[in-house]
Amino acid sequence: MAEEGFASTLLDNAVTELSRLPGLGRKTALRLALHLLRQDSDAAEALGNAIIEMRRGIRYCSVCHNISETDVCPICSSPQRDSSTICVVETVKDVMSIENTGQFRGLYHVLGGVISPIDGIGPDQLEIDSLIARVEAGGINEIILALPPTMEGETTDFYIFRRLGTLPVKLTQLARGVSVGNQLEYTDEITLGRSILNRTPFSH
Amino acid sequence: MAEEGFASTLLDNAVTELSRLPGLGRKTALRLALHLLRQDSDAAEALGNAIIEMRRGIRYCSVCHNISETDVCPICSSPQRDSSTICVVETVKDVMSIENTGQFRGLYHVLGGVISPIDGIGPDQLEIDSLIARVEAGGINEIILALPPTMEGETTDFYIFRRLGTLPVKLTQLARGVSVGNQLEYTDEITLGRSILNRTPFSH
Repeated sequence: MAEEGFASTLLDNAVTELSRLPGLGRKTALRLALHLLRQDSDAAEALGNAIIEMRRGIRYCSVCHNISETDVCPICSSPQRDSSTICVVETVKDVMSIENTGQFRGLYHVLGGVISPIDGIGPDQLEIDSLIARVEAGGINEIILALPPTMEGETTDFYIFRRLGTLPVKLTQLARGVSVGNQLEYTDEITLGRSILNRTPFSH
Repeated sequence: MAEEGFASTLLDNAVTELSRLPGLGRKTALRLALHLLRQDSDAAEALGNAIIEMRRGIRYCSVCHNISETDVCPICSSPQRDSSTICVVETVKDVMSIENTGQFRGLYHVLGGVISPIDGIGPDQLEIDSLIARVEAGGINEIILALPPTMEGETTDFYIFRRLGTLPVKLTQLARGVSVGNQLEYTDEITLGRSILNRTPFSH
């Protein structure tokens, strides 16, 4: 019998695998496993198969490194997107967030992280060489830096700026400012300060 | 493209199935799915298969209704357990908790819940008839009621007491009292009051 007195190695295996997921402890994993045992067997089959099929079917786009079911993702291969603009993001999730705004019709480049010496992440572990190669291949007018407004994100912004050197491409970044709908008193001082310096003409 | 702009129906399926688990919202489910995509494919296969195999291989013991990989569970079929004592618990998890104490060598009976009119749970939805049948079959000297010390648990205790009627079996319940290692000031008044009324001879 296992340390925690599970009567079943099958249960023990499922709990062990579930508890490998980030943020799930063994207690939560046990709760989820017992929940699945109470459901129709269809529920467990559907969950198990969905996980296996997702991992088998999804790869990373060879151009932008977003997730994709094909070698080149639907965004990179769409003739309706503006292929002269590349938005550089940290993660796959950021692509989803920007797509959800419906405000961007260009392409993406997913770095897979930001430069963080403390975490041992240098430029070589990120998809920066492949970004420079895309620009060098020509046809790119603008790179939008959409990395997080943190020290690591800004370090990475600056590194990319340096690597682009004299390549003929416009480099922009997301506007910083007060969040829409936020109270001013809850906006941090640096953001508030920048939003005064970078004030824009009143639009109505 | 789905509501949330997922580029992949495979990802969408996995997120949907994960978010059916209790306590996992769609955001958490997406985080877990993206984590699995970053791991070796072995990790997703192991998790998916562990879930499917657990559900296929585990059933409920036909005697005590604990989870089991066989028709009668290892506890019920063990010659080393005291088959004259049955501990009545609410859930499978309670069996694990009591087994972990190493203090009980009898058998169990898992009710699958407690009587709760507010939640629409009556005696018929619980394994109470099968408990009475076990006692009527003979050979049982003691029933230990180990249901939660809540109104619902105590209602169920009383219902079982009534159903047992004049059957020749000793009925006991878990000792109520101050938790070992707890400060008195954090013990609720009812528990503290009962632990004074039910004080026991000093043991050293």
